[in-house]
Amino acid sequence: MAKVNDNFLKLPGSYLFSTVAKKISAYQETNPDKEVIKISIGDVTRPLAKAVVSAMERAVNEMGTSEGFRGYGPEQGYDFLRNAIVKNDYNKRGIDIAPDEIFVSDGAKSDCGNIGDIFSVDNLVAVCDPVYPVYIDTNAMSGRAGDFINGRWSNLVYMPCTEENGFLPQLPNEKVDIIYLCFPNNPTGVCATYTELKKWVEYARENKAVILYDSAYEAFITDKDVPHSIYEIEGTKEVAIEFRSFSKTAGFTGTRCAYTVVPHELRLDGVELNGLWNRRQCTKFNGVPYVIQRGAQAVYSDEGIRECRENIEYYLNNASIIRKGLQSAGLSVYGGTNAPYIWAKTPDNMGSWEFFDFVLSEAGVGITPGVGFGPSGEGFVRLTAFSTKENTEEAIKRIQKILK
Amino acid sequence: MAKVNDNFLKLPGSYLFSTVAKKISAYQETNPDKEVIKISIGDVTRPLAKAVVSAMERAVNEMGTSEGFRGYGPEQGYDFLRNAIVKNDYNKRGIDIAPDEIFVSDGAKSDCGNIGDIFSVDNLVAVCDPVYPVYIDTNAMSGRAGDFINGRWSNLVYMPCTEENGFLPQLPNEKVDIIYLCFPNNPTGVCATYTELKKWVEYARENKAVILYDSAYEAFITDKDVPHSIYEIEGTKEVAIEFRSFSKTAGFTGTRCAYTVVPHELRLDGVELNGLWNRRQCTKFNGVPYVIQRGAQAVYSDEGIRECRENIEYYLNNASIIRKGLQSAGLSVYGGTNAPYIWAKTPDNMGSWEFFDFVLSEAGVGITPGVGFGPSGEGFVRLTAFSTKENTEEAIKRIQKILK
Repeated sequence: MAKVNDNFLKLPGSYLFSTVAKKISAYQETNPDKEVIKISIGDVTRPLAKAVVSAMERAVNEMGTSEGFRGYGPEQGYDFLRNAIVKNDYNKRGIDIAPDEIFVSDGAKSDCGNIGDIFSVDNLVAVCDPVYPVYIDTNAMSGRAGDFINGRWSNLVYMPCTEENGFLPQLPNEKVDIIYLCFPNNPTGVCATYTELKKWVEYARENKAVILYDSAYEAFITDKDVPHSIYEIEGTKEVAIEFRSFSKTAGFTGTRCAYTVVPHELRLDGVELNGLWNRRQCTKFNGVPYVIQRGAQAVYSDEGIRECRENIEYYLNNASIIRKGLQSAGLSVYGGTNAPYIWAKTPDNMGSWEFFDFVLSEAGVGITPGVGFGPSGEGFVRLTAFSTKENTEEAIKRIQKILK
Repeated sequence: MAKVNDNFLKLPGSYLFSTVAKKISAYQETNPDKEVIKISIGDVTRPLAKAVVSAMERAVNEMGTSEGFRGYGPEQGYDFLRNAIVKNDYNKRGIDIAPDEIFVSDGAKSDCGNIGDIFSVDNLVAVCDPVYPVYIDTNAMSGRAGDFINGRWSNLVYMPCTEENGFLPQLPNEKVDIIYLCFPNNPTGVCATYTELKKWVEYARENKAVILYDSAYEAFITDKDVPHSIYEIEGTKEVAIEFRSFSKTAGFTGTRCAYTVVPHELRLDGVELNGLWNRRQCTKFNGVPYVIQRGAQAVYSDEGIRECRENIEYYLNNASIIRKGLQSAGLSVYGGTNAPYIWAKTPDNMGSWEFFDFVLSEAGVGITPGVGFGPSGEGFVRLTAFSTKENTEEAIKRIQKILK
């Protein structure tokens, strides 16, 4: 008799964002006269840059001609895109990455999840708390997380990120094998400086650990001492895989393109992880649509860079509206200066879900309960800068009103 | 210290198609005056249908406007596409499938590989021999295949498909848990009739096995007694997952869209596999680009259906040219009437690679050695109908010449 992967059955109820979405829908249904503003989910709203649209349009038309038609592309991505990534995202920052260390994919979520394929089930994994749920759930599915007991996975090492430590994880006391780091952080919006990241690279080198570094939000970095890539720290190529995405950089959440960097120097027991990931992708993936890769390439054109930058500034301005607005309402807020996320402490020691319900029912604003990202998120909520300026202003006004 | 997934290290050398490609490139380099014709890889060559191009163009332009922009879509695919699939591919054939049983994805290769996530490692897996390598390699990666010893995986059950049994797998003597079937078959081009498939459904029902049914080539079926979907056989929903793709149906190999059907009735120990796959996709996947889904939807428009049909007929005509041409050269050939693949027996008991080398060096034609698909493929080669008519004719002429 066929058997299912029992690890799936250990996963707790539903995904955070779907619970949030359901609660908002239910409220909207029972209050059809009120217009709920959602500043809860990390989804962009600005249209694609003109340069991207033009490039994709050209590519679509090529695909309709005998001369321009493209069948299977390289699983790892077309050279035109891999080269543009290397030049713009790495070489321009003085980082030496080779095109064959870049693996173009359909999303950082896919890659962060699928990367587990190349690691043994018996690695000890460390995650931040609070954390982007995908890191945990995918490890749980593959049996690496153990059992879910009292809101925690028995085999994971949780690194609390709290107000006390500035929401920066501390080096674990025990030896861990795989460490997920995400900066600018989702959900707290906090960044790690060069000095801070260096600690982790040293830890990984000493313990032969691998850092899985998610920098999906690097385009939002404004501070000079915050590295855009973990490879800005010397010696990192031997210990880290970096995940990048066009989702937030260029509004590609519905267009789907990202990439993962696996340096050749990254070896475990003499085995190059680059080769393993290449084999994984060649066997279980068939590349990103040609049309989409042409769109991603256009992100790096002069016009593309300028247009995408304008959108990032637009969102950063929203972040600033949220930060200042909540601060003036008396809340403690974090993040939002190098990230599209604002992490706010609930007033009067309210629980995360309690404050979520309060803001939804009294202000008609959808936010995300911090505890949904992990136990240490209790007493916090996450707000996102991806709405329109008008809606962001209106949402903050409404929240200010109920906090008076 | 972090540890890799050792199963990857058990995988033999390189992927069949990359070895074939390298050999062809090497020959081309040393013989720059000869033009090699490749009828080796299953990649389409006809441009996208006009209906598809128009739909994608419209969608690209929508994405450039505030009103038309789309961010994250449903991980399972947009309703407009799921509904079109249900109506056209199932309801029209009298099959009752619900839209939430359809999971739109970036490729049947991805899905055939990733589906392993929801099954326990200790299922006994049966595969045809010869077989599409992805089924085996993905099971090997997850540890389900055992060790690779003398060209065979120790824990897989191989079902030989030979001239003697008409290239149709026979029911295994032992009880297996998961069975991969692919009809129209890659590589042999052979199809299973209604009666033949019924045997498998009965076996699966009796043994509580799950059939993973790959029907990526269903559009090439011309015979009336060959089912297009395994769900045409009564009682199949309780035992089978079906993989479909737009790659060959509509020339989407470089455009990337497919779908997988997981009926609610399919349960193991009371657990719905639909729910597990949904959870897997929601956690490790973020949906297919909006633009691409609009293109796939247009495949089902009147114009799209007509244009795609014309392309299929074009390829089927190539298949007929190959079949007849090789037959008249004295070879035994199979497939090619309900499939884009022709499976030909080598002359004079030549080995697959020997004949491959002979045809490449003497005729300047690239084909695929049958043994690359499994031990029982020895003594056969696979030819594909996806080239242009002109190149197909020329390739067959050249092969006929060297066989005289």
